[in-house]
Amino acid sequence: MAFQYSQELLNQVSSLIQQNDEQGIVDLLKDLHYADIAEILDELNAYEATYVFNSLDSEITSEILLEVDEDVREKILRSLSAKEIADELIELDTDDATDIISELSDERMKEVISEIDDDEHAKDIVELLRYDEDSAGGLMAKELVKVNENWNVLTCIKEMRAQAEEVTRVHSIYVVDDNDKLKGRLSLKDLLTTSARTPIKDIYIPKVDFVSVDEDAEEVAKIMRKYDLEAIPVVDELGRLVGRITIDDIVDVITEEAEKDYQLAAGISQDVEADDTIWELTKARLPWLILALFGGFISVSILGGFQEALQNHKELFFFTPLIAAMAGNVGVQSSAIIVQGLANDSLKGSLWKRLLKELSLSLFNGLVLAFILMSAGMYFLGFDLKFGLTIATSLISVIIIASLVGTFIPIVLDKRGIDPALATGPFITTSNDIFGILIYFWIAKMMLGF
Amino acid sequence: MAFQYSQELLNQVSSLIQQNDEQGIVDLLKDLHYADIAEILDELNAYEATYVFNSLDSEITSEILLEVDEDVREKILRSLSAKEIADELIELDTDDATDIISELSDERMKEVISEIDDDEHAKDIVELLRYDEDSAGGLMAKELVKVNENWNVLTCIKEMRAQAEEVTRVHSIYVVDDNDKLKGRLSLKDLLTTSARTPIKDIYIPKVDFVSVDEDAEEVAKIMRKYDLEAIPVVDELGRLVGRITIDDIVDVITEEAEKDYQLAAGISQDVEADDTIWELTKARLPWLILALFGGFISVSILGGFQEALQNHKELFFFTPLIAAMAGNVGVQSSAIIVQGLANDSLKGSLWKRLLKELSLSLFNGLVLAFILMSAGMYFLGFDLKFGLTIATSLISVIIIASLVGTFIPIVLDKRGIDPALATGPFITTSNDIFGILIYFWIAKMMLGF
Repeated sequence: MAFQYSQELLNQVSSLIQQNDEQGIVDLLKDLHYADIAEILDELNAYEATYVFNSLDSEITSEILLEVDEDVREKILRSLSAKEIADELIELDTDDATDIISELSDERMKEVISEIDDDEHAKDIVELLRYDEDSAGGLMAKELVKVNENWNVLTCIKEMRAQAEEVTRVHSIYVVDDNDKLKGRLSLKDLLTTSARTPIKDIYIPKVDFVSVDEDAEEVAKIMRKYDLEAIPVVDELGRLVGRITIDDIVDVITEEAEKDYQLAAGISQDVEADDTIWELTKARLPWLILALFGGFISVSILGGFQEALQNHKELFFFTPLIAAMAGNVGVQSSAIIVQGLANDSLKGSLWKRLLKELSLSLFNGLVLAFILMSAGMYFLGFDLKFGLTIATSLISVIIIASLVGTFIPIVLDKRGIDPALATGPFITTSNDIFGILIYFWIAKMMLGF
Repeated sequence: MAFQYSQELLNQVSSLIQQNDEQGIVDLLKDLHYADIAEILDELNAYEATYVFNSLDSEITSEILLEVDEDVREKILRSLSAKEIADELIELDTDDATDIISELSDERMKEVISEIDDDEHAKDIVELLRYDEDSAGGLMAKELVKVNENWNVLTCIKEMRAQAEEVTRVHSIYVVDDNDKLKGRLSLKDLLTTSARTPIKDIYIPKVDFVSVDEDAEEVAKIMRKYDLEAIPVVDELGRLVGRITIDDIVDVITEEAEKDYQLAAGISQDVEADDTIWELTKARLPWLILALFGGFISVSILGGFQEALQNHKELFFFTPLIAAMAGNVGVQSSAIIVQGLANDSLKGSLWKRLLKELSLSLFNGLVLAFILMSAGMYFLGFDLKFGLTIATSLISVIIIASLVGTFIPIVLDKRGIDPALATGPFITTSNDIFGILIYFWIAKMMLGF
């Protein structure tokens, strides 16, 4: 069902550009959704993308500008004059216009703003630019439908018709007092099912969820998800209604947050995509690999410190990758569960209770794994009992320590205000590799006495 | 802003239950949102949760039933008669009612359905039960507002008022013909801004996105996200309008999908939470650990096979955890980028181009890392040049192979219809550990000649 452009379509577009056939392009793309046209633009080179963009009707170009990849947008914007950009922005909701304008240099931004014909729109954009992009203020749009508590249903519908012209999607209708303070909301349904002379005061719902402009974007997402809201009003320090956030923006926040956590768990430190340049991908990946390399150095020197064991117990060295791998895997499992629990607020009870639970869990898992390891080792590799017990004891200890470290670190990071997702991936595998190898050889030394 | 119950509130609830004070509980909780009350119920024991549930007003209990954790819901449902469950279901939208009823045993389900007073509602639930829960049919609700293309705005508003009574949230208004075939949509905005006698035929928008009942839930999420839809109509094989899916259900699909991918990357095979029982957590974690253990065995036997190197080049064994860790980390990075690219459809171009890009990327990263490793090794650990070059060459080769494996496996899995997220986490780390160690010793054997 979702549109997928074909290579054939791309070729058609390219050849129309070569023939300088603007009308041909318009005809070819006229039935496509702007999100689909944006996908096509992402595939073209800078000249082609700009050519297609300029061929199309201004009604659709602003939406396309919003949907294309950031690097394509940058190229298109560079080809437009300040006035042309301003005309695109007027077509967009204030929050989307702000997102685009904030990608420009300060100087260009000022030029563009001064070219925006609609003073109200320009003022709104300037206001929105003030807010941090990860706050409620950075997510909200100024477009909303609000009515005064002193009106009646009839006035209300008349006023709303005028306001609705400006608003792409009407969600709730917000009720304010004469000072613009948020008093409550009015559902469209109530309005459709109440007689025309009823005063708004009598029918509005005084209970309304809202967020403050400086609320964190992730927190807004949690609130809207928890209470199943499709839009939420935003108020300033004085309780005045200043904007509203809609669920489509929240879907983006949730998706980006999930992608970030996933990438951190995989040791990728910036928001990259498979189609980014090698340089961007390297910037995101290499730092973690260097961290892991230094962790590896430490494990090398630990092993070097136990080299006297080589004489009588060289098999110990054959098991180091196994022990390190188990420590890494257990640690990542434990930390992932905690990171996810923190992300969706489902983590209850004290740290000690949590560690105790993890202790019993890892003790149980450790026993099962140690039993498998010991029996397989004695059967296939001909261990004696003492060596088998040594390896088994080490494995259990390593698993317990790794799972406690994996549980403890994200909780502590979170308490200190650091993103706990940092604690997954290379960070936890590397530190658990080191701990694991150290514990393994200590225990072996005690039990085998070398 | 988001509500957080306090331990004090939980204690108050418990003591009111002990005093058998139903009214006290109602008063204490009366200003709370049902989602907040559900959170409190999740914290109580089965008896207490059921007690609170039965004390509350029936208007709110159905919503609470929907929000509580599955295990709490199971306990509450067990304490209710079929008739009582049926009464809760009538309060809910058909999609939510279906979700709850599908958790019952077949026999109980039939009893409950026969007790539902509203025949239409019962019929809708029976219809929805037919669909796979991961399909559009499984997500959709039967509640929607539809108008006939042959009506005018006035009739339309009158009919809508009646229909809106049944529908919690009015999104688009769908336009159908006399055979119930979906023809288009009518925005609320258009309806608010058009005169009363205009025929619907003249104002409806014939272009409407829709999905088929058997469309995959994830695909529906992609479509709604891409086209920024807040609701999408669902049609059957004959093009008849049978339901609609709203964005709040899609938010849940996106969140669950992201959590699943994240857990798979961490080696957790089922949807678990930090507060699940130790047994459930073990079931989700132990299988992956056993897989990793078997991988570890293979690495043990590989190392055993190269033990003749111990005589002259024992340092080689000190480096195995470092090599294995680098292979694991690089592999996870590569596969995570591919998995994410597949998930959001941003992966373009052929497999060979993708592998070639990964090859250049890993060659570059490998050179940097090998240079650091060699210089540090020669400076701190006193390697001679030959040994330094051996380790460096091995590291580069291992990194290249690991990144190619990490890129190749998820793409191949995806082409065969297997969830590519399976390829991240323990699976990729374990296989790369093994490959890495094998390549490392091969190269060392060739270069050092033991």
